[in-house]
Amino acid sequence: MSNTYGDKFRVTTYGESHGPAVGAVIDGCPAGVSLDLEAIAATLARRRHGAPRQEEDSIEWLSGLRDGITLGTPIAFVIRNNNTRPEDYAPLEHLFRPGHADYTYYMKYGLRDHRGGGRSSARETVARVVAGAVAMQLMPEVEIEAKSQKPKEESPNDTIGGVVSCRVTGVPAGIGEPLFGKLNASLAAAMMSIPSAIGFEMGSGFKAAEMSGSEYIDRWNNDGSTKTNHCGGIQGGISNGMPIEFRVAFHPVVSIPQPVECLHEDGHLETVNIDGRHDHYHIERAAVVVEAMTALCLINYML
Amino acid sequence: MSNTYGDKFRVTTYGESHGPAVGAVIDGCPAGVSLDLEAIAATLARRRHGAPRQEEDSIEWLSGLRDGITLGTPIAFVIRNNNTRPEDYAPLEHLFRPGHADYTYYMKYGLRDHRGGGRSSARETVARVVAGAVAMQLMPEVEIEAKSQKPKEESPNDTIGGVVSCRVTGVPAGIGEPLFGKLNASLAAAMMSIPSAIGFEMGSGFKAAEMSGSEYIDRWNNDGSTKTNHCGGIQGGISNGMPIEFRVAFHPVVSIPQPVECLHEDGHLETVNIDGRHDHYHIERAAVVVEAMTALCLINYML
Amino acid sequence: MSNTYGDKFRVTTYGESHGPAVGAVIDGCPAGVSLDLEAIAATLARRRHGAPRQEEDSIEWLSGLRDGITLGTPIAFVIRNNNTRPEDYAPLEHLFRPGHADYTYYMKYGLRDHRGGGRSSARETVARVVAGAVAMQLMPEVEIEAKSQKPKEESPNDTIGGVVSCRVTGVPAGIGEPLFGKLNASLAAAMMSIPSAIGFEMGSGFKAAEMSGSEYIDRWNNDGSTKTNHCGGIQGGISNGMPIEFRVAFHPVVSIPQPVECLHEDGHLETVNIDGRHDHYHIERAAVVVEAMTALCLINYML
Amino acid sequence: MSNTYGDKFRVTTYGESHGPAVGAVIDGCPAGVSLDLEAIAATLARRRHGAPRQEEDSIEWLSGLRDGITLGTPIAFVIRNNNTRPEDYAPLEHLFRPGHADYTYYMKYGLRDHRGGGRSSARETVARVVAGAVAMQLMPEVEIEAKSQKPKEESPNDTIGGVVSCRVTGVPAGIGEPLFGKLNASLAAAMMSIPSAIGFEMGSGFKAAEMSGSEYIDRWNNDGSTKTNHCGGIQGGISNGMPIEFRVAFHPVVSIPQPVECLHEDGHLETVNIDGRHDHYHIERAAVVVEAMTALCLINYML
Repeated sequence: MSNTYGDKFRVTTYGESHGPAVGAVIDGCPAGVSLDLEAIAATLARRRHGAPRQEEDSIEWLSGLRDGITLGTPIAFVIRNNNTRPEDYAPLEHLFRPGHADYTYYMKYGLRDHRGGGRSSARETVARVVAGAVAMQLMPEVEIEAKSQKPKEESPNDTIGGVVSCRVTGVPAGIGEPLFGKLNASLAAAMMSIPSAIGFEMGSGFKAAEMSGSEYIDRWNNDGSTKTNHCGGIQGGISNGMPIEFRVAFHPVVSIPQPVECLHEDGHLETVNIDGRHDHYHIERAAVVVEAMTALCLINYML
Repeated sequence: MSNTYGDKFRVTTYGESHGPAVGAVIDGCPAGVSLDLEAIAATLARRRHGAPRQEEDSIEWLSGLRDGITLGTPIAFVIRNNNTRPEDYAPLEHLFRPGHADYTYYMKYGLRDHRGGGRSSARETVARVVAGAVAMQLMPEVEIEAKSQKPKEESPNDTIGGVVSCRVTGVPAGIGEPLFGKLNASLAAAMMSIPSAIGFEMGSGFKAAEMSGSEYIDRWNNDGSTKTNHCGGIQGGISNGMPIEFRVAFHPVVSIPQPVECLHEDGHLETVNIDGRHDHYHIERAAVVVEAMTALCLINYML
Repeated sequence: MSNTYGDKFRVTTYGESHGPAVGAVIDGCPAGVSLDLEAIAATLARRRHGAPRQEEDSIEWLSGLRDGITLGTPIAFVIRNNNTRPEDYAPLEHLFRPGHADYTYYMKYGLRDHRGGGRSSARETVARVVAGAVAMQLMPEVEIEAKSQKPKEESPNDTIGGVVSCRVTGVPAGIGEPLFGKLNASLAAAMMSIPSAIGFEMGSGFKAAEMSGSEYIDRWNNDGSTKTNHCGGIQGGISNGMPIEFRVAFHPVVSIPQPVECLHEDGHLETVNIDGRHDHYHIERAAVVVEAMTALCLINYML
Repeated sequence: MSNTYGDKFRVTTYGESHGPAVGAVIDGCPAGVSLDLEAIAATLARRRHGAPRQEEDSIEWLSGLRDGITLGTPIAFVIRNNNTRPEDYAPLEHLFRPGHADYTYYMKYGLRDHRGGGRSSARETVARVVAGAVAMQLMPEVEIEAKSQKPKEESPNDTIGGVVSCRVTGVPAGIGEPLFGKLNASLAAAMMSIPSAIGFEMGSGFKAAEMSGSEYIDRWNNDGSTKTNHCGGIQGGISNGMPIEFRVAFHPVVSIPQPVECLHEDGHLETVNIDGRHDHYHIERAAVVVEAMTALCLINYML
């Protein structure tokens, strides 16, 4: 079910970056909740901030709401792709760009939509951000804040990546599942499903692997809280009431503003200057998606 | 479905560390495969290597096989817990150890099996290792090798963690799914579901976040392979035919051989010397579990 | 997952009968299939035939297709509700009609869309018919034919029900699953999910319960076919290569053209003449939905 | 997931009729429930009543319980097959019996366990009955009663089928789901998954198809109950608070005590006298399985 996220609050997304539209159907949203649709639109606008392809991204709600109140039925929405420039991609019809998913999609499906990456494009995250904003409104006691860290300045001729740190407060102790349903395992999958994500760590993460046990263990306070939070707020897959803290590494934007060697379907290499509109730095926008995916992950445990 | 892993090759595990037995049911194994049961037992013996609690761990096969050939029906197996010492845990009946899942299980379920961690114990991974060994035999072309890196020597009075590096060869290009079914996202969840796992990264991982795009991009060879493998063999959630490479960080063993302050259910703190038999270093055994979970993850894409 | 049907070919439907639109997202459709969109529109027109609420029901395809070829990505479509008359339902705002799902939805959700039944309306089957028509094009070797039997003539003042017989040819032997995945069990669920369905039987069905074993058993021909088909083409949950035959009973239309006593939310009874546009006989259209659900059921086993 | 039933209360069964054991793992049972294990054994004894193959059927509980209290972890149990007589089946090694699933399993898997039907044997229902008995104890307010109706006396040389009527009281209004998660659709699938089941109807069922709307509609009482129960207690897939009533048709036992023509794998027909121990009439025992599957169906909606 690769296009559906969640089991209780299920989001099924659709849409190619250069097709008519992107959107999703949310199944499992409780009935009787008054949604603030303007706040959702504002969250979506935050994602757009600074993106080279500026779209109005107006959300049309197709079902599941009456006068802004959820009916308990599937909430479908659609966002039109107005500002596509498929002609930018014409030279790439038979080429696989390096660092992109062009080649792997082709190997899997035997065909691909070469126009802007199809489903592998970051355009797809629009639907996640809207669905995540709905989820957030169902958990008003939970606060999710993701911050991007820019490792260095991008140059006009190159791109960069970065790390997003996320901190979640307001999740009570006892949220999660054992074994394969561990909350940290679900968060890891949710984050690694974001385009460009390449690493995930809870709490002290890779640094914890170098600590001794007596350094690592989070000591108790009398009230069940702990003096440190090396574990990142989750033990045995279940929240302990401390802030949930994790970091997500993103590799640099792979569409670099330089000529690159592409692989032709017939096996020869061809140097191309790719014209599509692309970010040099995408981590600020990635942070909005990290927040959305965190909300989508958590709501499935909180409902 | 927190105790079930997979959708095509589904493993449902059961068993408390100090209950009568651990085991699993595997559903979705193809019919007509001749399983080498001795090789499976040998893999399980590798996991046991160096563990303080030595059990014979003999596997009884309850169904799904006839003369060692799979019938296409569920494969159930059971491994008895012979060497339990529940009396070791009597002093812990009303205490929450620091760093353990005692508190979070209690907050979730309102009760817990204080004897040895119940389902949160590493004992549970026995069933994963057996099921993973079955999965490996269904993919003879795939080789999975995990190596543990010991960051420093453990002391008699402290424990350590470490990192497991895993390298998978033989997975052809085109294996994986887009979006939420990304192979890297599933690997992340599989690894983070292992007790003590606290970080995951593909390829260059957190280092990739500090590279520029022109450093990061893996350049093509004519045959579709790449000159570097910063991405770790997966692009857009789908394998590209290069080795799949990832690293898993494990925090130190949280049962440290020193007196520790535990939290009593009534809220006071109590210093206790925990007597259970525990590792000082568990990363060698974690590597066996990493291989098993990698196999269980991959088989669901390869079938 | 009450609004999603299927596991390999997953259809998630959305839309209230008097909201803006109905539609679905299909996930799991193979890539590279050329869909005949006009044939799909024609199937949808067959469903409309004779319906009192005449809509144009034009299908807008939002994703998953390029030049009519499937991309292997989610296929989303939307059909606008143009001809709603919500004012017809104003008198019903606080009333529960007898025989309808008004009361049960209210008891479940604590609120409901009283306008035309919301999701419980037959309007919802529009999305099923479109998705089913897509599924049929993926199995050109399979022929599904459903016939409605009218038990008697409807009168101007009353409604009737009926039985739909369905016969499927072209399914080879060996399609199905044991136990809870039995093909006949899935067909039963698929059929009973259709509004008004109240009974299901395979082959000789309830008559088989009165036969002796020697009458019932389908005798072999040399080629693996059988001389009779009392079992309806499925044994042990798996097809035997004979035609798959089953019958679905539908209760009469529950919106009867007579004054009826409704239950008010405050507990008193109120006689009302319901004005909505309703069928007197709906079994011809039910047959189109039976065919669609049969296709959706089968494709999940055939892919 | 053909060997797993349920989503919240998930039962994964295993075991061949002539293998070492049958059993199941139950995942999703709430923690802290005191199970009456003797009552469960007694239910299992009711299933055995009158069966030609008498086994002790003693249940060994492997996990999930401590002192009879559920831990919220998977409950695994095993029942040994003591009284197998695989030699009875030796003459059938290359033959397909008429009316059985021998042929369809062979066509699906390319091999089969010819000894007693493997997973298609009624022996498999032992695990369902135990799991169903656990489920019943989680819903003490619900009463499930199934009654078998014997259509005629069996003869020494022939077998018969019959109908099981089931009536469930204590289910409040509002239990169920719309569309594909309809409670009646799930009940239909649950019942049709029982070996020999060939028809299912809610309330007035196939008779309802011949009624007019004014006859069929269940009229209100002031308290939300209805004067009749033609719909069988479910409307729009959701319970209305009236008793849930349905009937299940079972075809006759297909192992008839007469010589029958079997199909040989090489295509010739061969007359054989089948020696296995078989019922002439199995509907009394089927009623116990109907009750178990009803409990397993309901608990997934009630939890």
